Amino acid sequence: MTWSMHGTQTKEGDLVQLVGLSHKHFLVILKGGEKMQSHRGVVAHDDLIGVEWGTQVYSHNGHPFFILQPSIADLLSEMPRCTQIMYPKDVGFLLMTMGIGPGSHVLEAGTGSGGLTSVFAYYVGSEGRVYTYEAKEEHQRLALKNLNKLGLADRVVAHVGDIGDGFAENGVDALFLDVPNPYDYIRQVKASLKSGGFFGSLVPTTNQVSRLVRVLRDEGFLYIQVVEIFYRFYKPEPDRLRPVDRMVAHTGFLIFARPMILTEKAGMNPDVLGGNMLQDEE
Amino acid sequence: MTWSMHGTQTKEGDLVQLVGLSHKHFLVILKGGEKMQSHRGVVAHDDLIGVEWGTQVYSHNGHPFFILQPSIADLLSEMPRCTQIMYPKDVGFLLMTMGIGPGSHVLEAGTGSGGLTSVFAYYVGSEGRVYTYEAKEEHQRLALKNLNKLGLADRVVAHVGDIGDGFAENGVDALFLDVPNPYDYIRQVKASLKSGGFFGSLVPTTNQVSRLVRVLRDEGFLYIQVVEIFYRFYKPEPDRLRPVDRMVAHTGFLIFARPMILTEKAGMNPDVLGGNMLQDEE
Amino acid sequence: MTWSMHGTQTKEGDLVQLVGLSHKHFLVILKGGEKMQSHRGVVAHDDLIGVEWGTQVYSHNGHPFFILQPSIADLLSEMPRCTQIMYPKDVGFLLMTMGIGPGSHVLEAGTGSGGLTSVFAYYVGSEGRVYTYEAKEEHQRLALKNLNKLGLADRVVAHVGDIGDGFAENGVDALFLDVPNPYDYIRQVKASLKSGGFFGSLVPTTNQVSRLVRVLRDEGFLYIQVVEIFYRFYKPEPDRLRPVDRMVAHTGFLIFARPMILTEKAGMNPDVLGGNMLQDEE
Amino acid sequence: MTWSMHGTQTKEGDLVQLVGLSHKHFLVILKGGEKMQSHRGVVAHDDLIGVEWGTQVYSHNGHPFFILQPSIADLLSEMPRCTQIMYPKDVGFLLMTMGIGPGSHVLEAGTGSGGLTSVFAYYVGSEGRVYTYEAKEEHQRLALKNLNKLGLADRVVAHVGDIGDGFAENGVDALFLDVPNPYDYIRQVKASLKSGGFFGSLVPTTNQVSRLVRVLRDEGFLYIQVVEIFYRFYKPEPDRLRPVDRMVAHTGFLIFARPMILTEKAGMNPDVLGGNMLQDEE
Repeated sequence: MTWSMHGTQTKEGDLVQLVGLSHKHFLVILKGGEKMQSHRGVVAHDDLIGVEWGTQVYSHNGHPFFILQPSIADLLSEMPRCTQIMYPKDVGFLLMTMGIGPGSHVLEAGTGSGGLTSVFAYYVGSEGRVYTYEAKEEHQRLALKNLNKLGLADRVVAHVGDIGDGFAENGVDALFLDVPNPYDYIRQVKASLKSGGFFGSLVPTTNQVSRLVRVLRDEGFLYIQVVEIFYRFYKPEPDRLRPVDRMVAHTGFLIFARPMILTEKAGMNPDVLGGNMLQDEE
Repeated sequence: MTWSMHGTQTKEGDLVQLVGLSHKHFLVILKGGEKMQSHRGVVAHDDLIGVEWGTQVYSHNGHPFFILQPSIADLLSEMPRCTQIMYPKDVGFLLMTMGIGPGSHVLEAGTGSGGLTSVFAYYVGSEGRVYTYEAKEEHQRLALKNLNKLGLADRVVAHVGDIGDGFAENGVDALFLDVPNPYDYIRQVKASLKSGGFFGSLVPTTNQVSRLVRVLRDEGFLYIQVVEIFYRFYKPEPDRLRPVDRMVAHTGFLIFARPMILTEKAGMNPDVLGGNMLQDEE
Repeated sequence: MTWSMHGTQTKEGDLVQLVGLSHKHFLVILKGGEKMQSHRGVVAHDDLIGVEWGTQVYSHNGHPFFILQPSIADLLSEMPRCTQIMYPKDVGFLLMTMGIGPGSHVLEAGTGSGGLTSVFAYYVGSEGRVYTYEAKEEHQRLALKNLNKLGLADRVVAHVGDIGDGFAENGVDALFLDVPNPYDYIRQVKASLKSGGFFGSLVPTTNQVSRLVRVLRDEGFLYIQVVEIFYRFYKPEPDRLRPVDRMVAHTGFLIFARPMILTEKAGMNPDVLGGNMLQDEE
Repeated sequence: MTWSMHGTQTKEGDLVQLVGLSHKHFLVILKGGEKMQSHRGVVAHDDLIGVEWGTQVYSHNGHPFFILQPSIADLLSEMPRCTQIMYPKDVGFLLMTMGIGPGSHVLEAGTGSGGLTSVFAYYVGSEGRVYTYEAKEEHQRLALKNLNKLGLADRVVAHVGDIGDGFAENGVDALFLDVPNPYDYIRQVKASLKSGGFFGSLVPTTNQVSRLVRVLRDEGFLYIQVVEIFYRFYKPEPDRLRPVDRMVAHTGFLIFARPMILTEKAGMNPDVLGGNMLQDEE
């Protein structure tokens, strides 16, 4: 099985996205002799193998489809899942802000359906590692199935268990908590995240934000940032350009912070640091 | 010279960020025997080599600094530049939406100061490639200097010239135009971007959006998306949690589209496709 | 018939709002002996007359309702209508910005279902006047019915006709165009709106904004403002406070401008005025 | 002294706004023989009396000014003040939502500099009343001075004192608390606000919102709404239409609620009401 964004032609084993009219999507792994059935008719895989990406094909009863390479954003939204989706607007921003890229060692909890795990595994590349923790075994099974489909499972170390017991790894470069009570695990975070590394979390309510920020301060984290990201789509009509009628109002608040090694110096008051190190404005 | 997000200790040759109170930042390459001068005093590089990331150090007159690994978002905003900055909120989203990651071959114009080039070069990894075009030679020189500092120059092929003459590469996976008149180069885009690949652009005015969308439609691009991304920071005060007073109101409109290979089928009217393939809502 | 926000008790003839669970609303004029039928049961008007506002009553089969005075915002959204609704977020802002209040003489076109006409008629008070123009007679009939229900018709002068022929009034204090092509009537606006008065319009697309701003500039209007207003509701849960999931992304762009009397002065170049009189930031 | 939005010509005693280039504003009461001094030169009041609104005049050294009637939004922002300004985006919305208009009896605390008091006094008209409470006598003095300047003082009953002692009025139609701790006065609100009337407040932090919503629920208020209003201005350039670069990110959260008279009915559980009466979406 191959999922890749590179290359110009489809081949047996590729993970492809078939997109019909009205944006109806299907994810398929190409296999000679097989057929895709949908309410828009039957498409033979043999018609999809060895063609250029972006080619228009038709089902047996004439419905058009395009063959596309699914981007990581497409996969994030189409992956079978048991938990809340994370949005590209939030994930793209947290990748860049938390310094997650090729070679990074990233720890996350919980795994959920493996959506964010997949994004991390994709971006850390073949030299990076993702350590992921999940309390429920059936979630982990779904996540590993999703990771396998994308060919990313070998970059991922998956644990099942209670993160209250701490994480097996230490010195990781970035650590993301996607759990309802991140404030309960900040000591565990400090034990595993390298000094100067990036902590991140996403929580839906302001009460959780307050509680998490309070614990982060108490535990000596600095450069605490709280940020919300919005996006608004436009109807792409050149002569009647306007935003769409409705938009997502809220996914969650992103919180970032970094653990530091505070050193004392004669005549310096280290207490002053925590209070002033606010990111007031971007 | 090394820039990396991995590892726990500084070493000679590392690109480090020294962050003082009030978020004043300095980018430094560590070299034994050298000294960093600032209006907050002198710091000896020897005190910065071989320590843990996140360690607090002091200048000769007692000003505190933290030694940090700069994330790609930090570098984007601190890089010496001659052109408009791109924001992590926009760049993170376009990376994910345009399928840019390890192994991607990405073409962009114009290079500008190389900020976006650096982000692309970082995320395509050692196996990917970035082809970048710039009209002004002095811009390209600055961009290459910036890329060299980050150790990313060997993934980048830089051209100087008028993109009206077309691009040397073809079959690239993604192509981003950061120029004032992207609508003038859509035929050149089609010649270089693989079918089914990702086209993207960022323009500041609604007039440019209209004009670009019109040309993209005329040239048969599908899945056209126009989107604006906002972000709003909060003051991280747990007992007085509230948004900051002012925020960025606008950076630009992101436009995405994909070139396709339209095929005809008896009884099908291919004209219907372009008009209906609108991404009305996210 | 009476609609009023003042007073503490209901009486025969009052326009009342009955609000059930899940915010299902009914507008009723109280009349002894009548009954309100709904899928939540029957309520006798006699039970609703002579009680305090805010009282909870029950239908014959036990469904609870509250008796409330409908605010002008409630009426705007519940009025029978044939045209697009205007939102309180936009209307409240334009009232204040255009100086519309007790005693104002306001001209508007088109009347539509009379929603905005009603708001204007309410706020100009008994000494003010609203002149309203509508092309379609059936729209005007519905609007007058709505105005009569609120007891506001005597403050309104309603015209049917093509506003391309100009307005009968002149020297009005404020003039609002809620038509798809406001840019076609700016000369007519200038003839009716007093110098220094307030012009306003609301259009949905950026193309209309550009076109309207261009004509306003050409016709010597100054202090041109273009503004968008958003609102976001929160789930009122004290321990899980968070924004709702979805919100209105767009209603329209508000445009404001004022016609002036330019006078020349030796040595002054009046051309400079139009170009610089921009409201860049609020 | 006269402030009015009606009429086409200036006269002695009028409150006028002189607006220069770059939107520099001056508020002046016209008086024969007087002169306005500014760093842009001297303007004789005699040149400003008996002319049409919107006329361009020049100072002795050639700086141009326009003579305008200030709208209530202009006055809100230009009034001498000792407290935080309220924005037209918030005020316009709360007027409409709280049913405040001609004839309303409105109670507010605190008076502050009288900005919101003036808006209320303007919109309730000559038949309405505004009851306003302020703890600090010097604030009240400034507020009354501002109200007198606008000719609105006779509609206002001003109290100095601690609102913890309760309000003298009862049965008011609408009650707005602009104080840092509105949650401490909800019992006093219930005693003065008529059943079914409108309660409103504006607070800057999410902690205050949570606390206020909790008390409103405990005290049996229904139809609780929490909402944030944003606005974004555009550069009014027809060929380069785009939002301005920066905008206000936050003024405050608006909270609305209504006190009700709950009645019991055999077989009904009145407890269910409070919890379900949420305004989830607009």
